[in-house]
Formats: sequence, structure tokens, C-alpha cells
Amino acid sequence: MRTMARLVKQRSTKAGLPPGTLIHIGAKKAKETKITIIDYDEANFQEREIKAIEECFIFKDRPTVTWVNIDGLHKIEILERLGECYGFHPLVLEDILNTDQRPKIDDYGEYLYVVLKMLHDKGKGGQVEAEQISLILGPNFVFSFQEDEGDVFDAIRERIRSGKGRIRKMGADYLAYTLLDAVVDYYFVILEKLGERVEFVETELVTNPEIKTLREIQTLKREMIYLRKAVWPLREVVAALERGESALFQKATVVYLKDVYDHIIQVIDSIETFRDMLSGMLDIYLSSISNRLNSVMKVLTIIATVFMPLTFLAGVYGMNFKHMPELEWPWGYPLVWAVMIGTGVSMVVYFKKKKWM
Amino acid sequence: MRTMARLVKQRSTKAGLPPGTLIHIGAKKAKETKITIIDYDEANFQEREIKAIEECFIFKDRPTVTWVNIDGLHKIEILERLGECYGFHPLVLEDILNTDQRPKIDDYGEYLYVVLKMLHDKGKGGQVEAEQISLILGPNFVFSFQEDEGDVFDAIRERIRSGKGRIRKMGADYLAYTLLDAVVDYYFVILEKLGERVEFVETELVTNPEIKTLREIQTLKREMIYLRKAVWPLREVVAALERGESALFQKATVVYLKDVYDHIIQVIDSIETFRDMLSGMLDIYLSSISNRLNSVMKVLTIIATVFMPLTFLAGVYGMNFKHMPELEWPWGYPLVWAVMIGTGVSMVVYFKKKKWM
Amino acid sequence: MRTMARLVKQRSTKAGLPPGTLIHIGAKKAKETKITIIDYDEANFQEREIKAIEECFIFKDRPTVTWVNIDGLHKIEILERLGECYGFHPLVLEDILNTDQRPKIDDYGEYLYVVLKMLHDKGKGGQVEAEQISLILGPNFVFSFQEDEGDVFDAIRERIRSGKGRIRKMGADYLAYTLLDAVVDYYFVILEKLGERVEFVETELVTNPEIKTLREIQTLKREMIYLRKAVWPLREVVAALERGESALFQKATVVYLKDVYDHIIQVIDSIETFRDMLSGMLDIYLSSISNRLNSVMKVLTIIATVFMPLTFLAGVYGMNFKHMPELEWPWGYPLVWAVMIGTGVSMVVYFKKKKWM
Amino acid sequence: MRTMARLVKQRSTKAGLPPGTLIHIGAKKAKETKITIIDYDEANFQEREIKAIEECFIFKDRPTVTWVNIDGLHKIEILERLGECYGFHPLVLEDILNTDQRPKIDDYGEYLYVVLKMLHDKGKGGQVEAEQISLILGPNFVFSFQEDEGDVFDAIRERIRSGKGRIRKMGADYLAYTLLDAVVDYYFVILEKLGERVEFVETELVTNPEIKTLREIQTLKREMIYLRKAVWPLREVVAALERGESALFQKATVVYLKDVYDHIIQVIDSIETFRDMLSGMLDIYLSSISNRLNSVMKVLTIIATVFMPLTFLAGVYGMNFKHMPELEWPWGYPLVWAVMIGTGVSMVVYFKKKKWM
Amino acid sequence: MRTMARLVKQRSTKAGLPPGTLIHIGAKKAKETKITIIDYDEANFQEREIKAIEECFIFKDRPTVTWVNIDGLHKIEILERLGECYGFHPLVLEDILNTDQRPKIDDYGEYLYVVLKMLHDKGKGGQVEAEQISLILGPNFVFSFQEDEGDVFDAIRERIRSGKGRIRKMGADYLAYTLLDAVVDYYFVILEKLGERVEFVETELVTNPEIKTLREIQTLKREMIYLRKAVWPLREVVAALERGESALFQKATVVYLKDVYDHIIQVIDSIETFRDMLSGMLDIYLSSISNRLNSVMKVLTIIATVFMPLTFLAGVYGMNFKHMPELEWPWGYPLVWAVMIGTGVSMVVYFKKKKWM
Repeated sequence: MRTMARLVKQRSTKAGLPPGTLIHIGAKKAKETKITIIDYDEANFQEREIKAIEECFIFKDRPTVTWVNIDGLHKIEILERLGECYGFHPLVLEDILNTDQRPKIDDYGEYLYVVLKMLHDKGKGGQVEAEQISLILGPNFVFSFQEDEGDVFDAIRERIRSGKGRIRKMGADYLAYTLLDAVVDYYFVILEKLGERVEFVETELVTNPEIKTLREIQTLKREMIYLRKAVWPLREVVAALERGESALFQKATVVYLKDVYDHIIQVIDSIETFRDMLSGMLDIYLSSISNRLNSVMKVLTIIATVFMPLTFLAGVYGMNFKHMPELEWPWGYPLVWAVMIGTGVSMVVYFKKKKWM
Repeated sequence: MRTMARLVKQRSTKAGLPPGTLIHIGAKKAKETKITIIDYDEANFQEREIKAIEECFIFKDRPTVTWVNIDGLHKIEILERLGECYGFHPLVLEDILNTDQRPKIDDYGEYLYVVLKMLHDKGKGGQVEAEQISLILGPNFVFSFQEDEGDVFDAIRERIRSGKGRIRKMGADYLAYTLLDAVVDYYFVILEKLGERVEFVETELVTNPEIKTLREIQTLKREMIYLRKAVWPLREVVAALERGESALFQKATVVYLKDVYDHIIQVIDSIETFRDMLSGMLDIYLSSISNRLNSVMKVLTIIATVFMPLTFLAGVYGMNFKHMPELEWPWGYPLVWAVMIGTGVSMVVYFKKKKWM
Repeated sequence: MRTMARLVKQRSTKAGLPPGTLIHIGAKKAKETKITIIDYDEANFQEREIKAIEECFIFKDRPTVTWVNIDGLHKIEILERLGECYGFHPLVLEDILNTDQRPKIDDYGEYLYVVLKMLHDKGKGGQVEAEQISLILGPNFVFSFQEDEGDVFDAIRERIRSGKGRIRKMGADYLAYTLLDAVVDYYFVILEKLGERVEFVETELVTNPEIKTLREIQTLKREMIYLRKAVWPLREVVAALERGESALFQKATVVYLKDVYDHIIQVIDSIETFRDMLSGMLDIYLSSISNRLNSVMKVLTIIATVFMPLTFLAGVYGMNFKHMPELEWPWGYPLVWAVMIGTGVSMVVYFKKKKWM
Repeated sequence: MRTMARLVKQRSTKAGLPPGTLIHIGAKKAKETKITIIDYDEANFQEREIKAIEECFIFKDRPTVTWVNIDGLHKIEILERLGECYGFHPLVLEDILNTDQRPKIDDYGEYLYVVLKMLHDKGKGGQVEAEQISLILGPNFVFSFQEDEGDVFDAIRERIRSGKGRIRKMGADYLAYTLLDAVVDYYFVILEKLGERVEFVETELVTNPEIKTLREIQTLKREMIYLRKAVWPLREVVAALERGESALFQKATVVYLKDVYDHIIQVIDSIETFRDMLSGMLDIYLSSISNRLNSVMKVLTIIATVFMPLTFLAGVYGMNFKHMPELEWPWGYPLVWAVMIGTGVSMVVYFKKKKWM
Repeated sequence: MRTMARLVKQRSTKAGLPPGTLIHIGAKKAKETKITIIDYDEANFQEREIKAIEECFIFKDRPTVTWVNIDGLHKIEILERLGECYGFHPLVLEDILNTDQRPKIDDYGEYLYVVLKMLHDKGKGGQVEAEQISLILGPNFVFSFQEDEGDVFDAIRERIRSGKGRIRKMGADYLAYTLLDAVVDYYFVILEKLGERVEFVETELVTNPEIKTLREIQTLKREMIYLRKAVWPLREVVAALERGESALFQKATVVYLKDVYDHIIQVIDSIETFRDMLSGMLDIYLSSISNRLNSVMKVLTIIATVFMPLTFLAGVYGMNFKHMPELEWPWGYPLVWAVMIGTGVSMVVYFKKKKWM
């Protein structure tokens, strides 16, 4: 049931409800909702875990960059209050809760809403799992919504804390880019692990192809489909940002988006390459089965072809006719043996010549 | 005959008739034609089932939003009178009756004509059936035409009655959007059910692949083709609306259409994923057949290879030559047994080593 | 030889000739060239079969709509005179005679030249045949050129004669649309017949798949390719007309062209669906062959596995060793029978358990 | 080695050389370089074979149309002098010599450079060979460069000589069109011959499919790839000309280019159709092999199933037990025969019922 | 492990680092970093190997063309200093070090950054290896960065030294074009070698298809995927340059870029042709396996069908019934032989007729 749930989440519960109805779609992953605020500019920095969402409203009109990260989406009232305070469109709030989105970007003028997929491979049997990340980027704030605790943003937090590099000097758009970049960078980690599995299967295919090899090929193929689904639409999202369609992204940041775009193209390229390789493996698997059938059949044919004439001969001299002159010959028995061995040997020679042995 | 009828409806009866000829194409599904009127604005609300279509003409020039729903299309005169009163183009009326349309949108300036497919799975064996829904959207009215009673709009009716939410405050365009949204939302319900069947087949493929598994795979593949045919063109329809091509849709509603658009893309994505999965299953099915043939052949080969030499040996000592010294040996018989058992055992060892047993 | 001729007509006879050379390419289908004139406006109507093409030149400058239909193209002089009188470009005349055209539209300013394919299934074994129809549409005339007598236009003629409907009130562009519509409508008739054959093959595939089933699948696949070739380019033709690229089509008629366009899309959709279905059938056919091989092999294996050990046992006690104590036992013979029956039964039980029987 | 050379010519000799280096790539086909000049306008005509390329320079500034045809490209100095006199770009000269070009068009303002492929089937075993034709079209001249003598332009020469038709009245652009048209027309001749081979293979597939049938299918598939490679890019070339991008083509000639364009589309269409047909044949071939395996296996199974039980029975009564009451029965022997025949017949009946015989 | 590394390089080490972090991704190929400067204009020329990167800074503001080639990328400080002096964007420096890039072009206004792949086949077993080449083109300089020593630029160096041809007269843009051209030209060398391998496999497929033939087909298929990955994106790069999007390329040079573009298209075409051929070979391989199975099965069936009835007959006359009249007949034994030979011969005749022998 997991496999399918991963691909098509249970949305049917929403059918018939008015748009903007806030219902959390997807498994309740985090136990507690955890809200962290990081507020900084070049000179100042504070980081805080807050209990009530209202605590972050004070940052709304400050010139500093405020990053509010929310892990766990099942407490709907948090989103409701946030939406009221910041004036987010009801559909944005609905989409945050609906964790079965395709990566996309919605431009609401004063703020941008971006959906993307953070991949990790904590799943059973190394299965890749996608966690939906929603970003809301405003002039001086970034909200990030995650389904569960644990993410790929720790290095970013550290960079902000230490104040090294460019990040503290730049605005909220650069922060949003950094988050995007971190997510895309982690795709390479996932790809490498899948690459190792592909390679392992390939070795197995040469040494010992079995039905479970086939299953692994199919599993990997499906992982690729799953990855593709998560990454492919992101391409358009970043392309839209890079074309400078939104005024929220400054020109200095857009250069970096081109870099992210290249990475996404590379990820997609690798996925396609893996898919091609896996298709090739399927062909090899299928023909190695046929080959094995061939070699089994050859053994059978050789055995049958050698022993059937001999058994026939033995049968002939086992007949009980009164008048069978050969039986009386003193050299009859050795002669028959000679004929039989001769027949057998010539058969073997014939098969050797035909390269069946 | 049903399968095909579902894919290609009997249109040949229309060949040669002038355009605009009103002939109902498709099975007569509803027994009675049922016309319901819901008329509302923020303050007022009335709901009524009417007998004659003329009863709704009085709403034509009122500022309130009027939703006229018509179940059952075989009474052609209703459409004729409606067309005269509201000035609908003859081709619109013809298309409403012709239930074999692709989803499409025709913009006639004062009104929009939209065809879409409502899916349900009441068909035999869980077969998905598409019912054609025609919508005519004017400045202050929506006409909806259905082939049969029973739809996915009950929640909307309830929302209008109760006056909760946005719907009573918005215009006819929002109502049209809501109907569209309800139809698309129900696609997820259908997809989930199909997903369960896909999953069931997948399990069966591992435990006990049979020819009927193959048939189910093919059936599901066809369901996906059928779904795709119903959903794919809708994408363009909503994209056209969302681009704001029609003046009948206000800007506030267009935001919601983007949401519907995303949902349709998601549905199409899922269909494609299912198709990929089903193709993979076909490969597994075919190679599991080959595998089984392999194992059958191995059993045959083992049996033949073990017993043919033994039978030959027994045949040799069943010969009736006068001079066969071995036959006279006191230990001849046990010796032969020893040779035979030795041969047999070494064969088995050989096969074990070759992993055939 | 027919099959190929249907797909690639003998054009090589034209290689090296100057452009505009009038040579009839394709089989000479009609015995006689038959020219019919229908001339009408809202008040007047006349219909006539004429012997010499010159008789129609008098209608050239009249305001009425003139429809000249020519069945049979082998009399090249008719076209030559027509071309001179109306000033048609030599390439138009050449294309009319060259019945191996793709559907296309050429806009020569004062007149439009349209090539399309009329399908019928009079061919051997229900084979679909395409007859090329050329239309020349001017401000007040339509010329239609057919390879052979017999068409799908009788209903149109009847409508003009009777004066019912819109046709007598509209111009030559509407007449051209009507002819187009009639041809496209007949595609549905062809599709339905093919659909029945597809369905028949599908049933046969379940009950009794044979090599001829495979051939029929391939034949149907080829019919679909043939249809696609005839219909697909028509899409662009009608799309070009519908975009209002030609001044000869009035706005009121363009609305109707959108309807024809929708029908063509539907035809193409159905063809694609049939192709998908036929591919699926091929898979089923191939795996049903493999399945049958499997079941044949199982029978062989069961027989061999049951009787080979028994025959061996019988062979053992047919040996002629002097000292074979079992042979002397009074219960030896029944004992052997018991062992043999026991072995056989346990084999059968084993196969039942493995579900081979 | 031929096959590959046909597909990828030896270009590596050029790697590292500066652009514009004149090296003839491809086999030296013509023994002698042959230069022919045809110079004409409506009133005058002269045709001459010249020894030195300089002889044609006098025509450069005359208003007449000059067609210089050069067969054989290995004399590089000819090109060099021509280039100097007419001011052709070094890359044009390089491309003329490099006979491994894709069809393309380069617009250099004062002149157009067109590469196309003339097909003939003089190759071994009817293999299609492509000869590169380079055309340089100026305001009043056309240069045509061929790898070898022998072309499809004889009919054009005849038309110019005789002065019939349009050609002598038109400019150099019309001549260029005529050459293009002649090359494309000959594609139909090639296609027809391939069509006959496709048909022959198809017949063979029904009557007697062998491994060589498969090879022929693959050969034809490759011919189609080869053709496609030669024709497909020409489509864009002619489309570019037809869009009137070059000022060298007058409007009256552009109409004719549309005709050539239609022919190219038709050729491509036919190639695609053939490819589809050949794929279908491959499926039929493969499943006819499987079918034959099936029928071989049935014969084996029938024989084994009939004779194994009988041989077992004979073996039983060949045992040497002292106490075998059946052996003493007077009717024992006929009874056994009766049982054996009965068993055999019932087996045969069983197989008939299962339709294996 | 190499195979995979070739396709997906270890980038995971970079995940989480800030953009612009300089880390060398890819194997450290060159032992030493080698920097060579070639500085020239039409009159002057100097060539030098330098130890410290600072030595090249003096050329920055001179009007001569300066080509700085750097082999070996692991010394990050070189890049850092270079970036500071010339003001390159940090992302450019990062991309130079990240040798896992797709070919791409980034236009930074004052300079262009181009990534492309130089192919060679020094890899194990003739495996194609791609080395990343980064070019930075400024108004009067070209920087080329290579992973390892050894390149395809020696002919270019020689041309600059000798002062022959156009190169010394042209600017830095022409130099950049020349480098691009040299890389693309070498693709043809690689393609030819692969073409030879394809041809060799094809021959092997006819004479002696084995499982290793299949593996070679798959290997070649993968080489094609690898090539495609390296070449395909370059098409867009050169197309962008050729469209004249960058002011750094002068019009005279852009003509040459069109030539490079044509070459790239040709390379891609050849790759696609090879892929089609390899797919065809796979089909032949698979069906030749099936064919062989067929012929093995025929031998088995013939042997079984000939000897089973004979053995049965011998078994019958080996029965020990008291009353078996045939055994007493003086001609019984020869008669049985006659029957047996007759049966055998008629079987052989039957198989000959069925073309199994």
C-alpha cells in the first residue's frame, strides 16, 4: 500500500469541498508542529523557537530578513492566523496543506508561492521519499513549510549564524535561492545512491541473473519515474524565476538561479540516462533467460540423441525371437558394445562440431 | 460491444445531415428529463424543479445568478426552445446532444460553451464511464446539461443553500468554476480506485501470475487511455480560460482556475505514471512466463538425463546374447545397481552444482 | 500488389517532366467522365448534367452559387479548358490529376484549392480505400473533382434541391464547408466499421488466438496508418481555414469550420485509441503463444517424468543376470507393480501440488 | 565496410585543419572532371563542354542565364579559381568538396548555397546510394556540382534545348527550382522500387519466413533510415526558400517551391509508412518463429506421450519374474496389444480434441 | 565502478556548501598544473609556459590576442587569483572546477563562459571519455581550462606559430571558434572508431552471435548515450552564438559558427543512426537465439520421433509371453527389422518434406 500512496495521495476526502478549505492531505508525519524564526541583516542576528505563530508577526514590518520555518502541517489554525496576518490567498494556504502538489510557482504580486520536493531516502529498502516544501517569499521574509522535521538546510542555518559569505549581506530573495539550491544539491546525493544500486544490479546481471534482479530493475525504473515527477516540473519553476518574471528577485540573485537551473537539467539528464541504462538491462535480462533455456535444451537434446539409439539397439537384442543369428555369434556381445560406443562417440563428436558442447 | 461503444459512439446516423440538426447521440440514459433551477444572490435564494423549460425564461434578465441544470437530453424540443429564447448558436445545441465530444471550449462572445467529462465508475466490473457535461456560461446564468441524473454537484448545491463561503457573493463565473472544480476533484476519487486495482494486480503478479493477470493489466491500460482521452483536452480548455481570454471570467475567479489547472496536470501526471507502471508489469509478466518455461524444462531435462543412461544400462543387460560374461558373475547384479545408483547420484550432484535443482 | 499501390502510387512516370504537365496519376477508375452542374441562390435552382465543360463557363460571372462536380479525371483536355477559362494555375490542374496528394490547402488569392480524401470501404475484404477529392472554391463557385462516381454528397444535393435549411441562403464558402463536413462525417462511419472488426479480433483473441488473428491485427494496424495518413493533414487544412486566413470564407461560415475541426480531432483521437488497443492485443497474442508453449511443455514433462522411472524399473527386472534374488520372490512381481504405481501416483500428486495439472 | 562508409564518411582526415581547407571527402567517383555550360535566354541558347573553368568566367556579367554543371570534385584547383572569380566564401568551397553534408541552405546575400542528395539505386544489391549535389544560385547563374557523372537532369537539358515550356522565359531561380524538382521527383522512383522489395518480403513472410527474411527486413529498415537522413533536412531547406526568405527567388517561382515542398512531405510520409510496415513485419516474423517452435514441440509431445506408456507396458511384460501370471494366459499377448492400441488411440483422440493435431 | 563514475560524478561532497565555493569535482587527472600563454597579433607572437598565474596579468590590457591554456584544475588558488584579477563571477570559477557540467554558454556581458566536452577514447577497452573544456572569451583573451594535459589543439598552435592562414589576422573570437571547431572535428574521429566497432559487431552477429555480442551491443548503445549527452547540448550553445546573441563575436566569425553548427548536427545525426542500427541488431540477436532454440528442438524431436516407435517395437518382442506366435516365425526377426527400417525411413522422409532436416 505504501508504493501507491507514494504516487497518488489520498485526495478524495477533499472532493466536493469549497476551494480554500484547509484540510491536511498526506500522512501526519511530524508529531509536534515546530516553528523556528531566524531574523538577520548584515549586523544583527537572532534565532528562536516559538510556541505561538503570533510571535512572528512583529517581524512583519521590520527591514531585516525573517525566515520562519514550520515543521509539521497538521495544526490548521496556525496557517489560518498566518494567512490573516500576512494576507495570503486562501488557495496558497490550501496548497501548503495539500502535500500532493507538483512543484510549481504562483506569483501573487506581493509574494511568491513556490512548491518543491525535498528528496530523502529514509524509506524502507532505500526507497526515495519526497517531502513537500512550500516557500512563501515576500520582500523581507521567507516562510518555509515542511511536512516533517529534519531537512537539508542545516548548512544554511550555520552560514547565517556565522555570518560568513554573502548570505547576511543579501535579501530574502537570496535566502529563497539558497534554500532552493540546497534542495537541488541534495538530489545529486540521492542520484549517486541510486547510481550505486543501478551498478550493483548491473553486476548481478552478468554474474547471476535471477527473477529478483528483474524486480530490482523494475523498482529502480519506478524510482526514476518518481524522481522525474519531483524534478521535472521544478525546471519550469526555476526557468520562470530566471527569466526575471518576478520583481521580488533582484538581478544579482537571478544569476545564481541560472546555476540552479543548470543543476536541475543535469539531474534530469542523469535520470534519463539511468532510464536508458535500465531499459538496456531489461533486454539483457530477457535474453539471458532465453540463453539459459537454450543451454538447458541442448543438454536434454544431447542426452536424448546419444542414448535413444543405444537403448533402441539394446532393445533389439533383448527381443525373444527364436531365430536371431547375431545372438549366437561368439563376438556378438562385444560387437554390439563396439557399435554402441562408436555411435555414442560419433554423436558427441557431432555435437562438439556444432558447438553444442 | 460495450467496450467499443464506450470508445467510439454511434455517430454514423448523423452522417449527411445538415449542421445544427438536433439528434441525440449516445444511449438514452435518463428516463425523464429533469430541470432544476437554483437562483441566488447574496441575499436571496430559491430552488425549484420545473416542468416546462419556459419557466426559466423569466430569470433571463434578472441580476441574480441563475443555475439551470438539465438531466436527460432526449427531449430535443426543450433545447430548441431554450436556444430560441437565449439565442444560442445551433451548433451549441447540436454539440450538447452529441455526447461523443472531446472536452472543449467555444467562445461565442456573450456566452461560453464548455464541454467536459464527468467520470464515475458505476460501470460493470468497476469500468470507468464518462458522462458528458455541457456548460453554457452567460453574464448571469449557467446552464448545465447532463446525460443522466446523479452528479458530483450536491456539495455545491448545499453550499449555495446554506449561504456559507464565498459562492453566494460571487457571480456566475465563480459558479461555473465551482462546477468545473467539482468534476476535476472527482477525477482523484476515480484515480485512487484505479490505483488500488493497479496495486492489486501488482501483488498478484508476484504471487501468482496468470493469463487473467495479463488481461487485467490490459484492461487497466485501456482505462488509462480512456481517462486520458477525457482529461487531456480539458487541460487546454482551462488553460484558455486561465489566460483570461474570455471577458466573462473576472480576475478574482481566474486565480481559482489556475488551481483547477494544477489539479488537471496532476491527474494527467498520475495517469502517465500508471501507464508506465503497467508497462513495467507487462514486462515482468512476460518474463515470469519465460522463467516458468525454464523451470519446467529443467525438470524434464533432469529426469531425462538421469533415467536415460540408466534405462540404457538395464537394456544392455536385458539382451539375449549367448555369450555375456557379466550375466554369469555372482556380483553382476549388485554391481550394476551400484553403477546405476552411482551414475544417478553423480548426475544429481552435477545438476545441484549447476543450480538447476 | 494492391496493398502497396494503395500506399505509394505510381508516380515515377512523372519524374523528369516539367511542372504543370498534366498526367493522370492513379488507376483510371471511372469509365466515363461525368460533369454535373448545380446552380442556385435563395430563389432559383437548376441542376444539369453537361457533356462539354464549356457549358459551365456561362455561370462564371453570374451572382448565383455554381457547383460543378466532375467524376473521372482521365480526360485531360477538360481540365485544360477549365484552367484557361477560369485562370487556374497549372500546378492546381496538375495536382488535381495527381491523385496521390496529401490533404492540403493552397491559397491562390482569388480562389482556394483544397485536396482531401473521401474514404469508403468498398475494397476487397473491407479494405478502406481513399478517393481523392479536389475542391476549388471561388467567390461564387465550387468545383469538385472526384476520381470515380459515387460519393457522400447526395444528402447535400437533396438539401439544395429542396431548399430547406440554411444552404440556399449562404454562399459558395458554405457549400465548400458542407462538402468538407460530409466527407469528415463519413469518416465516423468508416471508423465504426473498423471498430467492429477490432472488437471481433479482440473476442477471437480470447477464445481462439491463431496466426491469422495476428495477421488481422496487423491488417487493422495498417488500416489505421492508412486512415491517419488521410486524416491527419486535413487537420492543418481546416485549422488554416478556421484561423480565417482566407478572405473567401465569411465569418459566419468560419464558426462551422470549428465544428469540422473538432470532428477531425475526434477522428484522429479514435484512430490513436485503436492503435493503442491493437498494440495491446499484439502483446496478448504473443504471450498467449508463450502460454500455450508452456502448457505443451508441461504435458511432455509430466509424461516423461512419470514414465521414465517406471520404464527404467521394468528394464531392471528385464535383465538377464543369473543371480537376481528379487525375480525368485513369490511376491516380487506384485511388489514391483506396487512400487511402480506408488511412484506414478506420487509424481502426479507432486505435479498437482505444483499446479502443473 | 561499405555499409558503414555509406553512413559515416571518413572525415577524420580533416580534423585539425583550418576552416576553408579544400580537401575532397568521399570516394573519388568520377575519373575525369567534366564541365558543361548551358547558357540561354528566351531567344538564345548555347551548350558547350569546356576544358578549363576559366572559359565560363565570360558569362559572369551577361544577362543570360548560365548553368555550369561540374561532374567530379577531386580537382581542387577548379574550385579555387571559381571561388576567386565569383567571390564565393571559402566555407562554400569546403562544403562542396565535403560530400558528407546534410542537405542545407546557406544564404550569403548575393548567392545561395544549397546542398541536397540525389538518390540512385545502382549500389550492390539494389542498395540506395546518395550522391551529393551542391547548387550555387546567383542572380543570373546556377552552378551545380556532382560527385559523379550521370544525373536526373537530362530531361531538363532537353527542355532548355527545345525551348518548350516556361523554362527559357524564366530566370536562374526557376532553373534552380527545376533541378530541385527533378531530384525530388526521382525520390519517388526510388521509393517505388523499395516499395516492391517491401512487398516481396511481405509475401515471403507469409509463405516461408526464414532468417534471411529477417535480414532483408533489417536491410530495408536501414535503407529507410538512410533515405530519411537524405530527405528530412531537405524539407527545412525548401520551407526556408518557400517562406521567401531569399530575395533571389522571385514570387512566381516561389509558388512552384510549395509544390516541391508538398512532394518532399509525401516522400517523408511514405518513408514513415514503410517503417511502420517493416516494424509490423518484424513482429509477424518473430511470432511466426514462436509458432513454429510451438508446433515442433507439439509433435515431440505427441510422440512421447503416445509411445512412453506403451514402451513402459512392453517393458513390464519383458520382466523376468518367475511368477507373472499374465505371461501364462493364452490371451495375454493379444490382450496387451489391445490395451496398447487402445491407449494409443485414446491419446490421439485426446490430442485431436485439444487441437494439437 | 568506472562506468557509473563516468555518467554521474561524485557531486554529493558539495551539497550544502554556499554557491561559489571552489571545490574540484572529478578525478584529479593531471599531476601538475601547467599554464601556457600564447600571445599574438598579425605581427607579433610569443609563446611561454609560466609558473605563476600572475605572469599573465600583464597581457590583460594589451591589444594583442592572448590565449592562456591551463591543464589541471586541482590548484584552486590559481583560479581564485585569476578570478580576482579579471573579475570573473564566482559561479564561473565554480563551474570550471565542477567537471560534471553539461555543455552550456553563460553570457556575462564583458566575457562569455562556454563549457564543452572534448572526447577521446583512451579509456579502458576503447571506452570514450569526455574531458571538460571551459573557455572564457573576452574582448582580447581566451582562457581554456582542461582537466588533463593532451588535447586536440596542437594543429591550432602550429597555425598560430607559423602565421599561415587567417588566424593571426583575426581576433579572440576567431580563436575561440577555432578551438570549438577542433573539438567538434575530433568527434568525427571518435564516431569513425565507434562505427568500426558497430560494423564488427554486425559481422559477428551474422557469423557467430553469442551473449558477449549482446553485451557489446549494449556497451555501444551506452557509448552512444554518453556521446549524445556530450554533444546534444552543444548544439544549443553554438546556435545561441550563431544567432549573434553575444557582441563578442564579430559578424565575420559568425559565418564560421554556422559551419560548426552543421557539423554538430551531423554528429548528432550519426549518433541517432547508430542507435537505430544497434536497436536493429538487438532484434536480430534475439531472434537468432530463438532460431537456434528452434533448430535444437527440431533435432530432439526428430531423434525422439524416429527412435521412440522403434524402441517400443523392440520392447514388444522382448516381452516374455508364452504365446507370442511372431517369435516362432522363421522370418519374424528380419520382418521386424524391415518394419523398423521402414518406419525410420518414412519418418525421415516426412521430416524432409516438412523441411525440418
